[in-house]
Amino acid sequence: MADLGDSVGLTTTHSVQLFDAAHPLVLASGERLDEVVVAYETYGKLNADRSNAVYICHALTGDAHAAGWRPGDRRPGWWETMIGPGKAIDTNRWFVISSNLLGGCQGSTGPSSINPATGEPWGLDFPLLDMADFVTVHRALVAHLGIGQLHAVVGGSLGGMQALQWALTYPAELTNAVVIAASSRLTAQNIAFSAVGRQAIMRDENFLGGRFASEQTNPNVGLAIARMMAHITYTSEEGFQSKFGRNPQRAESSPGFGVDFAVEGYLEHQGETFLARFDALSYLYLTRVMDYFDPFAVKNALTAVIDEPVRFLVVSFDSDWRFSTEHSRRIVRHLATGQLPVTFRDIRSPWGHDSFLLKIDSYLNTVRAFLEARSDYRGTSWERS
Amino acid sequence: MADLGDSVGLTTTHSVQLFDAAHPLVLASGERLDEVVVAYETYGKLNADRSNAVYICHALTGDAHAAGWRPGDRRPGWWETMIGPGKAIDTNRWFVISSNLLGGCQGSTGPSSINPATGEPWGLDFPLLDMADFVTVHRALVAHLGIGQLHAVVGGSLGGMQALQWALTYPAELTNAVVIAASSRLTAQNIAFSAVGRQAIMRDENFLGGRFASEQTNPNVGLAIARMMAHITYTSEEGFQSKFGRNPQRAESSPGFGVDFAVEGYLEHQGETFLARFDALSYLYLTRVMDYFDPFAVKNALTAVIDEPVRFLVVSFDSDWRFSTEHSRRIVRHLATGQLPVTFRDIRSPWGHDSFLLKIDSYLNTVRAFLEARSDYRGTSWERS
Repeated sequence: MADLGDSVGLTTTHSVQLFDAAHPLVLASGERLDEVVVAYETYGKLNADRSNAVYICHALTGDAHAAGWRPGDRRPGWWETMIGPGKAIDTNRWFVISSNLLGGCQGSTGPSSINPATGEPWGLDFPLLDMADFVTVHRALVAHLGIGQLHAVVGGSLGGMQALQWALTYPAELTNAVVIAASSRLTAQNIAFSAVGRQAIMRDENFLGGRFASEQTNPNVGLAIARMMAHITYTSEEGFQSKFGRNPQRAESSPGFGVDFAVEGYLEHQGETFLARFDALSYLYLTRVMDYFDPFAVKNALTAVIDEPVRFLVVSFDSDWRFSTEHSRRIVRHLATGQLPVTFRDIRSPWGHDSFLLKIDSYLNTVRAFLEARSDYRGTSWERS
Repeated sequence: MADLGDSVGLTTTHSVQLFDAAHPLVLASGERLDEVVVAYETYGKLNADRSNAVYICHALTGDAHAAGWRPGDRRPGWWETMIGPGKAIDTNRWFVISSNLLGGCQGSTGPSSINPATGEPWGLDFPLLDMADFVTVHRALVAHLGIGQLHAVVGGSLGGMQALQWALTYPAELTNAVVIAASSRLTAQNIAFSAVGRQAIMRDENFLGGRFASEQTNPNVGLAIARMMAHITYTSEEGFQSKFGRNPQRAESSPGFGVDFAVEGYLEHQGETFLARFDALSYLYLTRVMDYFDPFAVKNALTAVIDEPVRFLVVSFDSDWRFSTEHSRRIVRHLATGQLPVTFRDIRSPWGHDSFLLKIDSYLNTVRAFLEARSDYRGTSWERS
């Protein structure tokens, strides 16, 4: 990882119970969860006046382990390109907090956790979630860590949507929001891709109405198919073409229905490795939160943030067709109606939606500069490009 | 169908055995099929000098029933927009032949036909097919009908690829080739989408290594998932958005994991109806032919057609992202190296790849004008736009 600069080094995933029967989590739907555990990591040091905290929101299949190495890791955290000493989110300067989402499957409470009322995994009895619920849990973790105000909330894709939600609903608690490769409103095509992935999972013979964990099985076929299909949408046609073209998987083409083209081998690998790290129910719950997310359709959506302006950085990638540049432009247009300070950058990259995870200097430098800019300014200004 | 003009009316699907043990079909791979039946329809009348025949090549999931109505039909043939009295392919003028593909499942021999050697459905023992094999069978049908020279071969998507193959390999047998929304070389992304669809089918618990028919079952889950996913790629994001947006399926949204958005209901319907009309093995075989198709990579690919030039019309649709305009431009560039007469049109349409099936006047008028132009000119000329 030499070209990425120093790593934050060895990291530890912590676990904390933030809600319990005496202090349940009340969801946007009105339903309650009597037990919510959250997995999180932190990097860097909180300064004396507790003013240097940056909260990382992960994407659909991310987790709390955003940077550095845990014992036994074969690769570093998922945002190692972004977070570390001297990196764009500089851990010499910022105290970075990264948590696994409510509804996730990497240490935080989710639909495959045990339902305390039954002693069995929740399955589809787990309540439907809303983007606001993620923010509620993130805020509880921030409070638990004794922090009153965040320097920034930063996220890509679903993570960017959380950052946007947080900024719109609790603007006084963050100074900056970095919304990368995100959307404020999925299109019919966006929903369609997620819907087919969910159907692949739910129609898998081993899904068993969501009770697969209790039955010691797993909807492996459906989950792998969902992942393979989604992965196509995370890469650009251009990126796929330059990486694989029509190259054969082996030295010579072997026509038939097995893996013959290299791109087929790659997708199979993506599907396979995903099974080891992701839960089918989390896939359903988290994708559905994105489908329903539509924050600017809420009445008086901008009222709070107009009163307490947050500085926004909105970033898109020009080859991203999962959440295209137009999705980011729409966010910018909505924020602009409130005369909020918004910087918008459309980054040239051939790698599609996944660009937000990659080492692209113009992108990383943009995030760094934004976070390190004099940040006590809270009026309305224009920094759009 | 009033706005489409007159229909060819009642049609009949014929069936003819074109190859038998004494005259087997020798495939491009060298393998043989001792029994090949082909389903076909014809519209219009063959003229006295047998010079007005137009051959229609269908796309992946098409069949011989391109136009008109068969008894009991709830909708007309799949290219009713294109073929009929007074239409672009005018059955008052042309004798139109449309056949189901070798490897298909609508009356022509395919992998779910009975293997005469075993008395059981072929399954995955059916030989792998090549675009050239389709042409071999089409030519046999033309000969069977007593026709020596075709006025034109016309096809969209996979059908356009067949038209291209035919023109490159047997140019003396056709005067015109109309290649619509096709590709001469799938990209990694194109292959990826088909690969995931095939994986959904082959990993279905009821696929049974391709022996599902013998076991009286069907890989319904995988086939529906493959169709739903593919359908997303046949429509443009713009088309999906204007048709469905974020509209709910019912009067009010009912959040959960069922069909809630209208686009979800549409996809479910697409998957469901597909099961009634298409065979999972045909899906594997026909998509794989497209993956491997790469006619300009063949040595001396243009030699034959340079000797006997065919007039080409190449048509793309500007919102088609399955086989984008660039695919058509590539075909045109290759043909241009042979100084062949090529007309290229990129048609404005918001409906993506499926545009080739729709009533788009500028498109239909282009096809009509091309087919009706003085067609005895066989030299090199340029009609590119």
